[in-house]
Amino acid sequence: MILDGFLREFKGSIFPVNPHDNSILGLKCYGRVTDIPAEVDMATIAVPAKYVPEVMEDCGKKGIKAAIIISGGFSEVGHPELEEQVREIAGRYGTAVIGPNCMGIFDSRSGVDTLFNPRYKMERPRKGGISFISQSGAVGSVVMDWAGAKRFGVSKFISYGNALNVDEVDLLRYLGNDKSTDVICMYIEGTRRGKELIKVAREVSRKKPIVAIKAGKTKEGAKAVSSHTGSLAGSTRVWEAAFKQAGIVEADGIEQMFNYARVFAEQPLPRGDKVGIITNGGGFGVLATDACVKNGLRVLPLSKKTAGEIQKSVPSYAVVKNPVDLVGDADVGRYEVAINSMMKDKAIDSLLCIVLFQTANIDSNVIEVISEASDRHKKPIVCCAAGGSYSELHMHLLEEAGVPTFESLKDAADALAALTYYEDFKRGTPQK
Amino acid sequence: MILDGFLREFKGSIFPVNPHDNSILGLKCYGRVTDIPAEVDMATIAVPAKYVPEVMEDCGKKGIKAAIIISGGFSEVGHPELEEQVREIAGRYGTAVIGPNCMGIFDSRSGVDTLFNPRYKMERPRKGGISFISQSGAVGSVVMDWAGAKRFGVSKFISYGNALNVDEVDLLRYLGNDKSTDVICMYIEGTRRGKELIKVAREVSRKKPIVAIKAGKTKEGAKAVSSHTGSLAGSTRVWEAAFKQAGIVEADGIEQMFNYARVFAEQPLPRGDKVGIITNGGGFGVLATDACVKNGLRVLPLSKKTAGEIQKSVPSYAVVKNPVDLVGDADVGRYEVAINSMMKDKAIDSLLCIVLFQTANIDSNVIEVISEASDRHKKPIVCCAAGGSYSELHMHLLEEAGVPTFESLKDAADALAALTYYEDFKRGTPQK
Repeated sequence: MILDGFLREFKGSIFPVNPHDNSILGLKCYGRVTDIPAEVDMATIAVPAKYVPEVMEDCGKKGIKAAIIISGGFSEVGHPELEEQVREIAGRYGTAVIGPNCMGIFDSRSGVDTLFNPRYKMERPRKGGISFISQSGAVGSVVMDWAGAKRFGVSKFISYGNALNVDEVDLLRYLGNDKSTDVICMYIEGTRRGKELIKVAREVSRKKPIVAIKAGKTKEGAKAVSSHTGSLAGSTRVWEAAFKQAGIVEADGIEQMFNYARVFAEQPLPRGDKVGIITNGGGFGVLATDACVKNGLRVLPLSKKTAGEIQKSVPSYAVVKNPVDLVGDADVGRYEVAINSMMKDKAIDSLLCIVLFQTANIDSNVIEVISEASDRHKKPIVCCAAGGSYSELHMHLLEEAGVPTFESLKDAADALAALTYYEDFKRGTPQK
Repeated sequence: MILDGFLREFKGSIFPVNPHDNSILGLKCYGRVTDIPAEVDMATIAVPAKYVPEVMEDCGKKGIKAAIIISGGFSEVGHPELEEQVREIAGRYGTAVIGPNCMGIFDSRSGVDTLFNPRYKMERPRKGGISFISQSGAVGSVVMDWAGAKRFGVSKFISYGNALNVDEVDLLRYLGNDKSTDVICMYIEGTRRGKELIKVAREVSRKKPIVAIKAGKTKEGAKAVSSHTGSLAGSTRVWEAAFKQAGIVEADGIEQMFNYARVFAEQPLPRGDKVGIITNGGGFGVLATDACVKNGLRVLPLSKKTAGEIQKSVPSYAVVKNPVDLVGDADVGRYEVAINSMMKDKAIDSLLCIVLFQTANIDSNVIEVISEASDRHKKPIVCCAAGGSYSELHMHLLEEAGVPTFESLKDAADALAALTYYEDFKRGTPQK
């Protein structure tokens, strides 16, 4: 599976190693690593745990400076001594190791792909700016599959398992300097280097956003963590304080993490917390207002100038307040006026634009209006479009145009709040 | 559009009325209501507001006892006197009126369908046990579209607009007695009959669950309510107390409302708050535990008997605690043992079963195992399966088999918590 993964996208040379075969998937197979007749940059090791020390010795002798050890069977199942032995070998040769007990790496640019789930069961995402560090392989594989299906762009995914000599702190520092990474996502259960993690995260956060899920926040969850990765989940309060100090945007679950990552990857930061809301369904305007305000954002009345501008171009039964309700018979023209007037208004920092595609007068042209406004003004805009297949198609088109679009108003409001939170951190003002 | 809606599914006689046409969509058209040569049960009125009184007079003379007034242009845009006039006429003839200013009714069984959004933009749901009362037409149309796309079963949808002489209290009482309605959903901004609403809701809740969204819970949201339906949003605390007293399950947004409705429609109530969790990915087990505990559910250690039973059939590296982590190479056989042992255990009230379909050894047969266990044991079970198209297919298959399946662990845990909350209410124990 892993070799097949490399063969699909990886452009460099690949040398299969196995003592029992002469060729695998059409490539010449070597009996041991030291038989390979070329310099090797990286080894991917997927042999039973007890053979890993021997293979690592060979890698060291061969001068290979990086290894991914996929194999499980170490400290996570009560064999810390075997892990220690591998660590000693890696230390002796200066080998940087991802793993053991992990899914390894997916890099959309180099084509490195050690994820061993069958491709028909697990899609791969396209190139993009989101990278993801995960202490859980399963969480990572679901996220990659999901990102693939939703066509979100990913740079690198790293499942680091038992963190032999490369841990979340190293990876965070690496991705902080990685030019193809715009946003860093993390799934973390525990850490052995709390202070360094905060320090490095704080440095990285100044450059690019970090969105993290902390698993094991309840007492029972912490117990489950100890049976899973053997980490100490630690005190929830300490983690929350650390995240705040480091400017890490905390996500409540996988979907929220990726929702946040999408807006960070695609939208500019807002200057403040004042949201403008546009809708063609009054109930959605009300729910959006509630969702924003619950998130600590402000939904203030429109300025007279903006209201006047919109008023001129919409019928008298439209409600030109904030939210602006263009009502059920709104066409693209009404959206164009409302969006552009509000995007220009300095008293509005970000825009939540609801488009109910069920209504008779709306059509696909609204996508161009929204994406043009999003390009022209340096302000974040997110959309909400919920419904069946017609609406879903338009959600995808909006996404393709670079406008993060959500089915749920709560998700849209949460995403704007995350942008605002991070901008707040960057500006150095104390968090609420 | 409305006539077309009737023509598609409605089996009874239809009489178009319009003074300017002799026939519409192939049906003979009458000049006025009183010209119709038959008894008529219900009128659907979609004429400009100023003609509504005249049409209503005709309906009254014709002996029509029920009317849906789709037309807007009454109190919601500052013409309460016109609405009052219509109310007087309806009162004189004893006509029950849905609307005005509404989308009317969709009834999956009788084929009544006044929803005027084009069918290619808005899907219709299939027959089922969920009914939905909405003060907002837009919210209703999105929900219907969405339910159609996701293949959730709906009984009746009623958009009641300005509530001329039939309001949410009447509709709640009606649906409480409606045999084809198993779960009632509500979107509500405000009410003119608070006390009656609580009283009726409490009676209905004893028979079937009511899931409601209260819009306008923030100060700003309440302002948006007054520009939308002109209702008084009222105090959030009062509403929350009222919901609790009436056993109404409050939902935070449209998705959550429907998630709750689905589990209520398809799963039995749990006897208590003790959740068993099964997973084939450790990280998901941790996140599920956190999500359940945050929701006030309990995730307790497995009984010795259950643990022993499972232990016998799974490899030593599986984690037989709660959550039960069948690990990444789990096959259907391991799920079968774990699910059935836990469903039988009296110390487990409901089951959250995570299946990561990305893994190599899992296949579609797990669906039969889960749905059979769900049928055999009188305990609720919900699934979580997240990912790309392969996982999505299996989510749909699980849904078709009657097992509510969620992409998000939080949604799954929220749904189990809603079942538990309602069971608690029914048993008459005080809420936490």
